[in-house]
Amino acid sequence: MPALSPLNPPIRTLLGPGPSDIHPRVLAAMARPTVGHLDPYYLQLMDRLQDGLRQLFRTTNRMTFAVSGTGSAGMEAAVVNLVEPGDPVVVCVNGVFGARMCDVAERAGAKVTRLERPWGEVFAVDEIRNVAAAVKPKLVGIVMAETSTGAYQPIEPIAQAVHEAGAMILVDTVTALGGVPVEVDAWGLDAVYSGTQKCLSCPPGLAPVSFNERAMDAVKNRKHKVQSWYLDASMLASYWGSDRVYHHTAPINMSYALYEAVSIILEEGLDACFARHDLNHRALKAGLAALGIQCAAQEGFQLPMLNAVRVPAGVDEAKIRSELLARFGIEIGAGLGAFKGKVWRIGLMGYGARPANVYLLLAALEQLLAEQGRPFDRGASVAAAGEVYSAK
Amino acid sequence: MPALSPLNPPIRTLLGPGPSDIHPRVLAAMARPTVGHLDPYYLQLMDRLQDGLRQLFRTTNRMTFAVSGTGSAGMEAAVVNLVEPGDPVVVCVNGVFGARMCDVAERAGAKVTRLERPWGEVFAVDEIRNVAAAVKPKLVGIVMAETSTGAYQPIEPIAQAVHEAGAMILVDTVTALGGVPVEVDAWGLDAVYSGTQKCLSCPPGLAPVSFNERAMDAVKNRKHKVQSWYLDASMLASYWGSDRVYHHTAPINMSYALYEAVSIILEEGLDACFARHDLNHRALKAGLAALGIQCAAQEGFQLPMLNAVRVPAGVDEAKIRSELLARFGIEIGAGLGAFKGKVWRIGLMGYGARPANVYLLLAALEQLLAEQGRPFDRGASVAAAGEVYSAK
Repeated sequence: MPALSPLNPPIRTLLGPGPSDIHPRVLAAMARPTVGHLDPYYLQLMDRLQDGLRQLFRTTNRMTFAVSGTGSAGMEAAVVNLVEPGDPVVVCVNGVFGARMCDVAERAGAKVTRLERPWGEVFAVDEIRNVAAAVKPKLVGIVMAETSTGAYQPIEPIAQAVHEAGAMILVDTVTALGGVPVEVDAWGLDAVYSGTQKCLSCPPGLAPVSFNERAMDAVKNRKHKVQSWYLDASMLASYWGSDRVYHHTAPINMSYALYEAVSIILEEGLDACFARHDLNHRALKAGLAALGIQCAAQEGFQLPMLNAVRVPAGVDEAKIRSELLARFGIEIGAGLGAFKGKVWRIGLMGYGARPANVYLLLAALEQLLAEQGRPFDRGASVAAAGEVYSAK
Repeated sequence: MPALSPLNPPIRTLLGPGPSDIHPRVLAAMARPTVGHLDPYYLQLMDRLQDGLRQLFRTTNRMTFAVSGTGSAGMEAAVVNLVEPGDPVVVCVNGVFGARMCDVAERAGAKVTRLERPWGEVFAVDEIRNVAAAVKPKLVGIVMAETSTGAYQPIEPIAQAVHEAGAMILVDTVTALGGVPVEVDAWGLDAVYSGTQKCLSCPPGLAPVSFNERAMDAVKNRKHKVQSWYLDASMLASYWGSDRVYHHTAPINMSYALYEAVSIILEEGLDACFARHDLNHRALKAGLAALGIQCAAQEGFQLPMLNAVRVPAGVDEAKIRSELLARFGIEIGAGLGAFKGKVWRIGLMGYGARPANVYLLLAALEQLLAEQGRPFDRGASVAAAGEVYSAK
């Protein structure tokens, strides 16, 4: 029986749409000794992790915890708990993840109204107010940080409009959390989900979620059982709540990693963390502009942590990506769906959002573009980024 | 904003029903540098991991991979893919996990016939043949290693009876895999699922699964979409298959851990690994017998890796468990459901199945029982275990 060849992953600089560069403290946390899922230490850790997640989400929601799956499991957990067969639901679609939410909601038996905007654009309050008035949905789902397009959707006024229409709002904060303010309580968000592998700089594998009282009431007053046993929030509430009733065996070491990741953000301070994301985004954007590269998302609505940028005409985009990886160990993302072959997705997320990465990427990209015969002043992109940092 | 207190998990010896003692190489693998989920290295790792899992399951099934969730997500993945609303399904229930499978199948819309046996007993072929003839199920679900009772269910003859009735068989191998033979191809098992935190000695977080061609045909010929987007096997087949179509972001570092865990087993050799589990089980059983402690499961059908044993009369079982943890750092499991307060569950799983752990547990248990005034020869349990090892 042949054993497997040794595990020797290459060292990458992860500047794609996630997983992001993992903080070394988080990697070390993964390797700490495993304890049982009902060990007194682990139960205490769950409490503290919940406290930390509440701080990230800026909420006092009791039901704030980590789903034992990736961000997509978080999406599914939110949808299948809040939606029952036949419920009218509005989903806002301007990229891959809104489309995914439609699919998830339809599989849960929802009557889905799909509100669309072109890729890279964001939704205006009025169009959501209109569709909510017409459909009278139970739930409106929207993506705050569309990882496929780099569009930064303002949430607060939309939450207000959704509530005025009597519906609940579910917000995808997978890429947003830890990179830009996510104000669950101040904005009155009924349910949110996120992932670990974006601005938390933790490997993929858990999905932080939060449900407010109204959402939990909807769960408690369901007519049908939640279709997923694994994601049933009422059962998960008994495990994550004070009862600690065994449900499933939690991913212990992934929890260690998330705990450490959350702690690192709280040590820096959330506002400082947001400011750092913004600064590095502006430096990158200035550097890319010097290379003739522009953001794909609507001006004024561009995410700091996920820069979807248009590939310049005449450039072999796949070759640039593969050479960044092969020659520099840098991963950036390709376009998905409508943006396939047209954009690169450059993540500056969490620990990855730092000048060293901005300079490295600009220098490498400049060299590769020059090799493909693009005309520009060598060194200008790094210089442009430097000016942003110096002006801070 | 208060940061979280430092992460300092205590060092435990995990001899409960899982998570089991994690091999140090597996913990180290968790902390290796994260790469992207579409990185050429990761795609190659997925291929090799699938090969390794095929060896563990003793199958050539193309659809052999790891679900991005814990063992219960593996159960749900198997059920929701194979079952459509209204499908007749038989589930064999002689403990917690059979009962869980009923719940999962009912949530998937199955018409579930629940075949019951008392806790600790196993099913006979005839009773399954009879119920299959009466119900004409699409699927029969059964647990091979019932972690709540320690019962070791023979699978091969049941698989044959199920197939004669025209149904598919789904086998829960969560605790079995890596500890006793799981012969997916030789026994003709249509679908199996497992977990990482039992005999693979890997932290919880992934669920190895395997579907044969017949099961995948059932998935392909479904009338309704699979209710779970996250667990949809046809979409997962495109990611784990040669297309590598992005579905969700795989838990990269958990995959490293599983890869290393599988490799360790293949290096030892599966048969040697089973023999080691058996030997340590016999040593433990002999030692426990010297303490007057007997297995709870039916004689002749006792699992080697999970020893559910009856708490002697007059012993404060919770006190013993808490003192094992507090004074010796040893975790053993409490009874669940019908066995609550009546049994201890002692796991000797994977890396945990070794003489050092057997001796440690016997010595500690003997001391604590003596402190509670139990009469027996001090040292007899360790001596009895030693005789088993010496006679090998």
